[in-house]
Amino acid sequence: MRVYLAGPDVFLPDPHARGAVLKAICARHGLTGVFPMDELDTPEPPEWAARPLPHRIALRNEAHILGSGALIANLTPFRGPSADVGTVFELGFMRALGRPVFGWSNAAADFTARTLAFLGGATPDGEGWRDAEGMALERFGCLDNLMIDGAVAASGGSLETADVPEAARWTDLAAFERCCAKLAALK
Amino acid sequence: MRVYLAGPDVFLPDPHARGAVLKAICARHGLTGVFPMDELDTPEPPEWAARPLPHRIALRNEAHILGSGALIANLTPFRGPSADVGTVFELGFMRALGRPVFGWSNAAADFTARTLAFLGGATPDGEGWRDAEGMALERFGCLDNLMIDGAVAASGGSLETADVPEAARWTDLAAFERCCAKLAALK
Repeated sequence: MRVYLAGPDVFLPDPHARGAVLKAICARHGLTGVFPMDELDTPEPPEWAARPLPHRIALRNEAHILGSGALIANLTPFRGPSADVGTVFELGFMRALGRPVFGWSNAAADFTARTLAFLGGATPDGEGWRDAEGMALERFGCLDNLMIDGAVAASGGSLETADVPEAARWTDLAAFERCCAKLAALK
Repeated sequence: MRVYLAGPDVFLPDPHARGAVLKAICARHGLTGVFPMDELDTPEPPEWAARPLPHRIALRNEAHILGSGALIANLTPFRGPSADVGTVFELGFMRALGRPVFGWSNAAADFTARTLAFLGGATPDGEGWRDAEGMALERFGCLDNLMIDGAVAASGGSLETADVPEAARWTDLAAFERCCAKLAALK
C-alpha cells in the first residue's frame, strides 16, 4: 500500500534525506512511502504549466494523496500550538476520500495545555478559558483541533505521541513508526 | 446553494449570533449559509452515540460539508502566523470533494511576512529564511501555506483580504462578503 507522508518535514534542511529515512521505515512495515517532494509517476497535466509554482506544488501534492491508500501526518506543533496547516489540509483532503488517516506528534501534552502555554495563560470562563481576544480554547483533551482527532478516529487510524526532548522534535521517529505498524496491521 | 462557513468564528463569545450575521450576508447574495454549530437536517446516525463529544462534533461538521455545495473559510490568522487548523482541515476536505472553496482574511500581509513577524526574525538562507530550528519559511507570496492558496485557485474560488485594525480582526466582514459575491457569481 502507498502511504502519503504529510508533514512539515519538507521544511527541514535536507528534506530529501528525511523522505528517504521515512520511506525506509515504511518499507520495514511493507508500506510504500510517498513523500510530497517525489516526482509524479505520470507527467504533469499540460494545463498546470500556466500556474504559479506554489499552485503547481499544491496540485502535485493533491495528486500524490489521490494516488495513495492512506496518509500518515506529522502533527508535531509547528510555529504555534497546532500542527502545520499544510499538513492538516492534506489530512482533511484524504479524510474526505474515506481512506485511513494517522497522525503522530513529538509533543505529548494535549491541545489545551499547549494552547495555554502558547498564550502564556488565559482567562477562566466557566469550565474553560478564553484568550485575550475573547476566543474560547478547546478543552476536550484532544491532541489538536477536534476535526483532526475526530477524523483520525472515524477513519480507523490512530494518533501516536512521544514525549521527546525539545531538541529531538524533528528527529525522533518512534511515534511515526508506531503509525506505520498500526497501518500495516489494518491491511 | 448551501455554503459551509468554516472558521474560528465558533470560538467567539457569542458564536450563534456570529453565525446569524454571516448567514444574513449569505442571504443577501442568494446563498444559504451553513454554520458549523447548526443542527443536522437529519438525526445523527445511532453509531455516533458511542463516540466522545469532540468526535461527534467533527462528524457533524463533516456531514455539513458533505451537504454543502461550496465552502467559505475565515483564514484570519489564529494563534500563530497561519489560519485555524480546524478551518484548514475543512477546506482540504471540501477541496477533495471537488467543490469551490473560498477564503478570506482580515490580515493582508502575506504568509512570509507574517511568519517573520511571528518568529521575530529568521536566518537568511539563499533567497529565503530558516527559523531557529532550521525549518525553512515558505516564500512564495501566498496568503498562507501553499496548499491553501493552490486549492482555492484550482477550485475556482478566490482569496479576499482586508487590511483592518487589530481590534476589528473578528468583526470586519467586508472580505467575507466579497467571497459571497464571487461565489454567487460562479453559479
